[in-house]
Amino acid sequence: MDTMENDAASADLELIVHGPAGAAKPETRLWLRMLSTTKLITTEIRRRLRTEFGATLPQFDLMAQLYREKNGLRLGELSRRTMVTNGNVTGLVERLESDGLVKRVTPDRDRRVTVAQLTPAGAKLFAAMAVAHEAWLRDLMADVDRAMVAELWSDIGKVKTSVRNHLSGSEFE
Amino acid sequence: MDTMENDAASADLELIVHGPAGAAKPETRLWLRMLSTTKLITTEIRRRLRTEFGATLPQFDLMAQLYREKNGLRLGELSRRTMVTNGNVTGLVERLESDGLVKRVTPDRDRRVTVAQLTPAGAKLFAAMAVAHEAWLRDLMADVDRAMVAELWSDIGKVKTSVRNHLSGSEFE
Repeated sequence: MDTMENDAASADLELIVHGPAGAAKPETRLWLRMLSTTKLITTEIRRRLRTEFGATLPQFDLMAQLYREKNGLRLGELSRRTMVTNGNVTGLVERLESDGLVKRVTPDRDRRVTVAQLTPAGAKLFAAMAVAHEAWLRDLMADVDRAMVAELWSDIGKVKTSVRNHLSGSEFE
Repeated sequence: MDTMENDAASADLELIVHGPAGAAKPETRLWLRMLSTTKLITTEIRRRLRTEFGATLPQFDLMAQLYREKNGLRLGELSRRTMVTNGNVTGLVERLESDGLVKRVTPDRDRRVTVAQLTPAGAKLFAAMAVAHEAWLRDLMADVDRAMVAELWSDIGKVKTSVRNHLSGSEFE
């Protein structure tokens, strides 16, 4: 496959849905643009994690959760927070454990459960990854002025609130 | 798991990364909000596709691509355009074929390849799904005024352009 083909395929992401008249409504256009932009950034972050840290995005997300919860998290909880399936979380934790970045412990407060925690080495690595992650996002959004970044944050918050108010049934069924 | 636990987990999506000081930079905050909003909408669309059409999001994406390309697409091309892996595309196409929604043909213009096309029943179903999809997005964004929807579309376009201008190496390596 050549680059032109791929440019076309990528541009397609904003065009996956057409109404019968061929013109998408404003909300659909916005949604497709949000989706394609999110995919573009996610792909780039995956690439940089791999190149600069030899890490995957699920590893990064999982370590981020453990970094926030110093007491550790059960694997089921980790799975819910990261949207990684239960089965995959186990494999990811085992891999991180064998790299010395995560350990599984039975906390004193509840002897019945096992939780995963970052090791000091894991916490140190994640802190470095988080700093890099922030720098990557500044770099990727370098051409967007700060006021617009703040306004987008606020306005997308309004979209999020609207979506939450219009979810069908339980959000978490 | 109870609802409160899940609300907490969901809110977490905007908090997965902290700088050492605990406060994320504006670009990171914007990114996490884009990500969490996109996930919220994607989850809701998945739910509605399942409930109202008994369909999955990959099926919908795949049919959307075929709807646009009346001449059909090779499975490898379908995979690239939908970000579904090659192996999964084959299974999806077989499933849609057995439902009478997709057919595989050898086009006259190139007898060496096989492409997947929507059947008339598949095209009819997808058109109905696309109309519903647009209505869902209007519904989900009902509390956001039209001017803000248009402005967000434009401003997120600027983010997208900035990201494209700052990708490391080839976007499609």
